[in-house]
Amino acid sequence: MLTLDNNCIVIFGASGDLTQRMLIPALFKLYMLKELPTSFAIIGVSRSDYSDQSFRDKLIKHIESDPDVDQAALDKFSKHLFYQAIDPAKVDQYAVLKERIESLETQLEIPSNTLFYLATPPSLYSVIPKNLAAHGMNKEDNGWKRLVIEKPFGYDLESAIELDKSLYKDFTEKQIYRIDHYLGKETVQNMLVLRFANSIFEPLWNAKYIDYIEVTGAEDLGIGTRGGYYDNSGAMRDMIQNHLLQVIAMVAMEPPAVINADSMRDEVVKVLQCLKPLTDHDLKHNLVLGQYTKSHVRGKCLSSYREEEGVPNDSRTETYVALKMFIKNWRWDGVPFYVRTAKRMPTRVTEVVIHFKKTPHPVFSANPPDNKLIIRIQPDEGTLLTFGLKKPGSGFNTEEVSMDFHYKNLKNTQLLTAYERLLLDVVKGDATLFSRSDAVHACWQFVQPILDYKKQSFDLYGYAAGTWGPIEAEALFEKDQTWRSPCKNLTDTDYCEL
Amino acid sequence: MLTLDNNCIVIFGASGDLTQRMLIPALFKLYMLKELPTSFAIIGVSRSDYSDQSFRDKLIKHIESDPDVDQAALDKFSKHLFYQAIDPAKVDQYAVLKERIESLETQLEIPSNTLFYLATPPSLYSVIPKNLAAHGMNKEDNGWKRLVIEKPFGYDLESAIELDKSLYKDFTEKQIYRIDHYLGKETVQNMLVLRFANSIFEPLWNAKYIDYIEVTGAEDLGIGTRGGYYDNSGAMRDMIQNHLLQVIAMVAMEPPAVINADSMRDEVVKVLQCLKPLTDHDLKHNLVLGQYTKSHVRGKCLSSYREEEGVPNDSRTETYVALKMFIKNWRWDGVPFYVRTAKRMPTRVTEVVIHFKKTPHPVFSANPPDNKLIIRIQPDEGTLLTFGLKKPGSGFNTEEVSMDFHYKNLKNTQLLTAYERLLLDVVKGDATLFSRSDAVHACWQFVQPILDYKKQSFDLYGYAAGTWGPIEAEALFEKDQTWRSPCKNLTDTDYCEL
Repeated sequence: MLTLDNNCIVIFGASGDLTQRMLIPALFKLYMLKELPTSFAIIGVSRSDYSDQSFRDKLIKHIESDPDVDQAALDKFSKHLFYQAIDPAKVDQYAVLKERIESLETQLEIPSNTLFYLATPPSLYSVIPKNLAAHGMNKEDNGWKRLVIEKPFGYDLESAIELDKSLYKDFTEKQIYRIDHYLGKETVQNMLVLRFANSIFEPLWNAKYIDYIEVTGAEDLGIGTRGGYYDNSGAMRDMIQNHLLQVIAMVAMEPPAVINADSMRDEVVKVLQCLKPLTDHDLKHNLVLGQYTKSHVRGKCLSSYREEEGVPNDSRTETYVALKMFIKNWRWDGVPFYVRTAKRMPTRVTEVVIHFKKTPHPVFSANPPDNKLIIRIQPDEGTLLTFGLKKPGSGFNTEEVSMDFHYKNLKNTQLLTAYERLLLDVVKGDATLFSRSDAVHACWQFVQPILDYKKQSFDLYGYAAGTWGPIEAEALFEKDQTWRSPCKNLTDTDYCEL
Repeated sequence: MLTLDNNCIVIFGASGDLTQRMLIPALFKLYMLKELPTSFAIIGVSRSDYSDQSFRDKLIKHIESDPDVDQAALDKFSKHLFYQAIDPAKVDQYAVLKERIESLETQLEIPSNTLFYLATPPSLYSVIPKNLAAHGMNKEDNGWKRLVIEKPFGYDLESAIELDKSLYKDFTEKQIYRIDHYLGKETVQNMLVLRFANSIFEPLWNAKYIDYIEVTGAEDLGIGTRGGYYDNSGAMRDMIQNHLLQVIAMVAMEPPAVINADSMRDEVVKVLQCLKPLTDHDLKHNLVLGQYTKSHVRGKCLSSYREEEGVPNDSRTETYVALKMFIKNWRWDGVPFYVRTAKRMPTRVTEVVIHFKKTPHPVFSANPPDNKLIIRIQPDEGTLLTFGLKKPGSGFNTEEVSMDFHYKNLKNTQLLTAYERLLLDVVKGDATLFSRSDAVHACWQFVQPILDYKKQSFDLYGYAAGTWGPIEAEALFEKDQTWRSPCKNLTDTDYCEL
């Protein structure tokens, strides 16, 4: 059903960073893996002035910086790159673009299959599709037309609904591919395989056996030069609304009937729609927002958030969120999900920790060992299971040990990056790993009370840059529950152990 | 409750191999670990003529061959060794032994706690206790008296019952410690901790989730110089009746109410009493007996069993047993247990493999990955869990991976050998890891039909020494079931991988 048709890939925002750093290298990688069709054209579009050649030179220079690059292949690949300057905000200029695409299609014998990738500021997400449609470039009479939209999809629930309304005037849901690069990560998809291809995990995967679940998305870096964007977004929009809620959906969903775009996304939406709505009580007691303050880590001075470039010095934007949430359905009733994300933590790590309940009848000691399944999404992708074995010697004392698997130990595997994987999927027309409209709305719906809460006066806790966040987040936990530290020890800021 | 009382250890069969190779080195190790009481005497007894000093010299020479031995400690330890020559078959000579024990007790200020270790041929197992009792040495008026009996406990059901009857005339069950050194192995005990100290295994540990269970006890060696003994015993008595049925009991038992000798052994007996009795049909179709034949392995010629020293050249003793058996209770209904043991296999390994059922609804591929838990008892003690993860790249294909834990990776642990552990337990009066009478009877009861079957004409299959046994054993299996090969590959006779 999924075929690799010859096609044109039209990238709006072609002079930007994302195109140069991610999209073109990803397409080149797919080209090297022979995952692109026999005939294809990549057409960069932006207001900047480039010739085909100067566009190629600019993009290729970036890839060439890799010393292992196959220069001959790169030269061949670059022949597939073209450039067309237009102002994407001006509808009349699309005639030129249309003509250019058609001429390349004729020249390269490509049928009228076109992928429009919107690597542009969000303000253009509704403008470009409308303008494409004005020139009939949304019509699928002679081939498919697909629209790839980068995050963020909307700024809140209302704007997300507005954006969908606008897109639906000219495109169908089946034509729209909303990128969440977290879903492109092998280890996020692996959660599904781990759960549903094996018989040993699913029987334990519910409120009867699971005590609580942790989801951590930690960055050691600050916001760098993205202050202007970040200060309007905050950690809630930047990480939780999209990435981490999707990860939770993968952890918590029911087994899909089959693996295809709609069956899978039906199950994702079911979970998201069961997220227990946050009440005023939750906002006060189950949510901790923080912002990093200046600190010294190993003799290095780290700026406070308010000192970062592009950030107002009275900013109340959160760089840390910890949230205790619940899923109201049969499987998860009463199991707390603790989610945290932040900038300037001691290490960079994304992981899910399934904390199983203790044995109901501890025969060996009053304090049985922890049983945890840790699913590491990045870095050092893998899984780790902790359990208790007998301490050697007399008696029956227990000791916590672990078994682990590291993805990098797999032989003969070529790990695709998230963008490579997602580009490959969209070229093939597989929407499984793209967010569907109802899922995006459900996510916004869940976080909207927090966005509203932030408009009033609210508690924002400081935490020293390079630490695990405000101490107040400990208060979220129930008895015998706490965050796992992914670092070997708490003073170690570099090492991140599975 | 368990205390380390000062005591005398009286070893019958003191001039024999077991005493020199196992018992005295084990006691020395316990001494080094400060696990022996402050005052104790070890009194060797046999018909041979030794002085205390010549007995010490003989035993210590064996320990001294270890280059790391602490000579000063060994000298001190040897002062606790004494020797008394008597003929254990002659009741009147026990007066001398009694006097010697009492004199050492007075001299070393040891109360009348005595451990009688019967490291003798089985023919003496009923004689020695009777003779001890004739001199009142079974009486616990002034201190405990314990009897340690080596395997085999009986030769069949009838003789085991006879032996118990004889012992019970003078000793109570609480005084009798039947050694099964398999139960002294850390990893056998670990099975209990793995199962009952963790919450994640027990929910899966039943007929609903387990497809079948394999128990392998393989030796790469032949019978060496033990031909005379072995030919009267055979693999059935040598390994299955005692060791492997005990291992199965540990794998299959219900959680004990508490961990003490009686609660634990109550559960062991319950399983053994639920072993589905073997019918004539089982003997014909679910049992394969084999005997190794001459072969060449890597240029080395291995003798056939019948060519071994002490074996009649028309012997029909089995050196290989494969048996498919069932446990008739709520937990295990319908789950086959495949047990095999043999001499002259490609490698030395004892392991239990739990084969979990496949997923009921395979969404990713028609052939979901195997889920296996391998519990390695020896060598390279540890656990390994195999499961499926996503094959990196497009789509959702699965690949079998594994997580493992090796016991040797534990830090700061001093692994006790089976004899060290069991001697320590019996000195402390902990009978948990010793076979109780009812368990021994249940084991004999189960194997008795096989022993009877062997008295008639029966099929005995040859297998080339150094191979995995007769091909006929494959016929035991149900669809999609087979033995796991613990070797890296089938032609590799040395390497044994967890």
